[in-house]
Amino acid sequence: MAGIFQRTVRLRAAVRHLCPHSTLTCAARLSPADFHSPFLACSSGQFVASTRKLHVEPKSSPAGAPERLPFSKVTDEDLAYFRKILPGRTITDPDLVESSNVDWLKTVKGSSEVLLRPQTTEEVSQILRYCYNRNLAVNPQGGNTGLVGGSVPVYDEIILSTSLMNNILTFDNISGILTCQAGCVLENLSLYLEERDYIMPLDLGAKGSCQIGGNVATNAGGLRLLRYGSLHGTVLGLEVVLADGRVLDCLATLRKDNTGYDLKQLFIGSEGTLGVITAVSILCPRKPKSTNSYLFLLLGCETFEELLKTFQLCRGMLGEILSAFEFLDSECMRLLNTHLKLPNPISDCPFYIVIETSGSDPDHDSQKLDNFLEEAIASTFVTDGTVATEESKIKALWSMRERVTEALTHDGFTYKYDISLPVERIYQLVTDMRQHLGDRAKSVVGYGHVGDGNLHLNITSPAKDPALLAAIEPFVYEWTASCQGSISAEHGLGLKKRNYIYYSKPSQAVALMGNIKAMLDPKGILNPYKTLPDNLK
Amino acid sequence: MAGIFQRTVRLRAAVRHLCPHSTLTCAARLSPADFHSPFLACSSGQFVASTRKLHVEPKSSPAGAPERLPFSKVTDEDLAYFRKILPGRTITDPDLVESSNVDWLKTVKGSSEVLLRPQTTEEVSQILRYCYNRNLAVNPQGGNTGLVGGSVPVYDEIILSTSLMNNILTFDNISGILTCQAGCVLENLSLYLEERDYIMPLDLGAKGSCQIGGNVATNAGGLRLLRYGSLHGTVLGLEVVLADGRVLDCLATLRKDNTGYDLKQLFIGSEGTLGVITAVSILCPRKPKSTNSYLFLLLGCETFEELLKTFQLCRGMLGEILSAFEFLDSECMRLLNTHLKLPNPISDCPFYIVIETSGSDPDHDSQKLDNFLEEAIASTFVTDGTVATEESKIKALWSMRERVTEALTHDGFTYKYDISLPVERIYQLVTDMRQHLGDRAKSVVGYGHVGDGNLHLNITSPAKDPALLAAIEPFVYEWTASCQGSISAEHGLGLKKRNYIYYSKPSQAVALMGNIKAMLDPKGILNPYKTLPDNLK
Repeated sequence: MAGIFQRTVRLRAAVRHLCPHSTLTCAARLSPADFHSPFLACSSGQFVASTRKLHVEPKSSPAGAPERLPFSKVTDEDLAYFRKILPGRTITDPDLVESSNVDWLKTVKGSSEVLLRPQTTEEVSQILRYCYNRNLAVNPQGGNTGLVGGSVPVYDEIILSTSLMNNILTFDNISGILTCQAGCVLENLSLYLEERDYIMPLDLGAKGSCQIGGNVATNAGGLRLLRYGSLHGTVLGLEVVLADGRVLDCLATLRKDNTGYDLKQLFIGSEGTLGVITAVSILCPRKPKSTNSYLFLLLGCETFEELLKTFQLCRGMLGEILSAFEFLDSECMRLLNTHLKLPNPISDCPFYIVIETSGSDPDHDSQKLDNFLEEAIASTFVTDGTVATEESKIKALWSMRERVTEALTHDGFTYKYDISLPVERIYQLVTDMRQHLGDRAKSVVGYGHVGDGNLHLNITSPAKDPALLAAIEPFVYEWTASCQGSISAEHGLGLKKRNYIYYSKPSQAVALMGNIKAMLDPKGILNPYKTLPDNLK
Repeated sequence: MAGIFQRTVRLRAAVRHLCPHSTLTCAARLSPADFHSPFLACSSGQFVASTRKLHVEPKSSPAGAPERLPFSKVTDEDLAYFRKILPGRTITDPDLVESSNVDWLKTVKGSSEVLLRPQTTEEVSQILRYCYNRNLAVNPQGGNTGLVGGSVPVYDEIILSTSLMNNILTFDNISGILTCQAGCVLENLSLYLEERDYIMPLDLGAKGSCQIGGNVATNAGGLRLLRYGSLHGTVLGLEVVLADGRVLDCLATLRKDNTGYDLKQLFIGSEGTLGVITAVSILCPRKPKSTNSYLFLLLGCETFEELLKTFQLCRGMLGEILSAFEFLDSECMRLLNTHLKLPNPISDCPFYIVIETSGSDPDHDSQKLDNFLEEAIASTFVTDGTVATEESKIKALWSMRERVTEALTHDGFTYKYDISLPVERIYQLVTDMRQHLGDRAKSVVGYGHVGDGNLHLNITSPAKDPALLAAIEPFVYEWTASCQGSISAEHGLGLKKRNYIYYSKPSQAVALMGNIKAMLDPKGILNPYKTLPDNLK
């Protein structure tokens, strides 16, 4: 015991000496041959036999938009009605509607001529009741930060923006339960809560503009899922306006409520196709005691197997204080360096791990981190690393992970895939894709949330390249389906991925989704062309 | 800092000296007058005006069974079919069927003459396809430990037991994801996982006989919900056989999957009325490092306000290692002492708090606990307490909380209520009920999960007493509804509470539940007379 204690003290002293931005380098490096990998190896041509069948059906039209459905067109009479119920908030100036017609990635563009900005649930209800009776299609829109074309109109759907529904309704500082309107921006909620010693259970790169209603409608994952779980667990209640204008009040503020079916769950992740979320109640965790109790590590690994072993070690030793375990590959690091001039703070490695911890006792947390580091170094899972404890340095290191998306936009036209796989398989897809594409791609990079088994696979080319796309798809979907993975871990299906649903869901389940849609929105006016495949309509 | 450190060391030394079953007594006790309560006071006659409307509809027949619905009766031909597909597992011997006809509390008794014991999903599918075509009603049954009459037949429904579906299918020791058949007993799963350094994310008093399929079907809460959240977050996938025999395969083993609507959520908490759960995939947390890292406190408080202040302090100071915060009142302690001869290990107090922590570092955990205790004592929130670190002593103290139900059964006929309320209101209901009933009740006791806002209110009388029941109901439901509480926090509605659903859900939501039931089970053969109110049928 004394020996371990002394070593810990020494290491902690060393880490403190090197902080806030120290580099720990190990003398010994393992060669891959030193490893007895417990993980399945699988190349693109050698899929492990699956006991579950592949549910792939013929695709009528993959990512592109289908024909416009026979909804009514907006008339002057309609506009007069909207102006009456939303005076000054019925926007028809094309310049003002423009930004709501285009998605964040600028890959989907609608041609809506009307943007409605209600402030209350009652106004949303009036709008939908009217549109339902008139058979007018509606595109509910939050912060418009989605990546699959789910948040913008495809044709001339009326855009119903929740941006002006941005009031916090209640906050209970004993239970940590917040209720607010759907249009509250995530970052504003975070700031509000932090003043009250709480935090939001989710955090996203898009927090400055995404809205909580949109987060819930898309079941956003993000950076804290590993620690606080999904919105299916943390959202306690929803208020939803149904397609015909009826208000469904499930805005409970209770941690436990087993009175009948949990209807709110249907709307979490349904991308605005079943109803418009107007208010949310959510369970918020206590804020970690002080900013000092955030500790941050960037580590390098020689192989993905070592990275996974580090993950297992980390979960065991950091346990309850582990709040993020992310990875990026050397290609990501190259792009960060090339396009954003972000230097690699440690020596070059094939894989980089980003670990964040947050707990209630800074001394305990740093000691746990020391012990973990000592063990990780001793077992030679990691070959290099740096620790940060100061907030500015933590932010600088986090940006290595958060700015990969931005670096990719500078690299060329980007084909983005958001894949969920058994954690031991996630990097094999990148390796196989790289081999499969060869010189046809400019860059093939992988990064993501190891703790959630979530890979962000990105492929760039100098310009849009249909031949490259044909080489990527359906290869990427078939590969994923062969491992019972999800072809959309957290981005949703929206317009772009709707027809690929059968790669991850059996036709029985998709048919049932169609029944639910027909039950809640018989005319199909809510966010048409999204989520469900064309062959259901 | 040095001063705090020295005090901590002293306190820790004191705790260690007194362990494993030490008593910390504070000299100073607060009188209630010393408190400036931040909480709303509310007696039965003085409900705070509610902004949400009460959704109470006329009740056709409250807790009792409605008329038998016109299902077919089981014929010899039916039995011959069942015997063919389930040879040796089609039970018709009345003595053997008997125990499956009666619920755990022995308050509901059906008259089924057939108990089917399938082993595979395919067999469940065959049974339901047949029953659906024949219009035979089916009562799915797990461990039959439910408390609201949801797990037994009401009339002659065929009992479909999942007890023989008890295989563990897969366990991934990197991700902690377990898949198993629905009939696995919770305790067996716990033992299996503990050998592999994991634990189940839920724990119940009934763990020795309840089954994971039943846990999911009833959205069981239990003792670990505070730490690991509800099954809506931890269940990753389900395999369900629908009423007509179709198998719905949503048995994903992914933490993230946003491909379409999350159908499995519908079945979590639907009490077997929408489908029969045949397999479950669930995310399991890592086991706390060693048994030593479980620490346990029993504390005494003079008022419920002090108890809540202790809760807030505890959440702030124990943070991520807090795994349970439970309470019982002095009436519970009296019954434990009277009927089970369990002595109160600390001095008499109006309220007792049970705190469990579990973390990854025993030294850190005990230091956190010391700091918390020191603060709680200094602020005079708690007036007495005892600490346990040895497993046997922890179990002995836990039984103070876990055996309240058993003590109640010895006290007389028990009227049980499982209420969810804003946490600051939970004990007011007990006080108001006590005052409201006066001498009519033998005992009125309150205990439950403070962290979840979940009160178990129990009222005893020497024998079944319709006049007493009439005094309790609808008083208890109206009181709960006036605080936007839930009339069933974790027990579900089953047969007994189905008609009270309107106290916690608006009629709009209940109507939608009816639509979902009609969509998935148009003939209504699955667990009839349960969950949904009679006026929907």
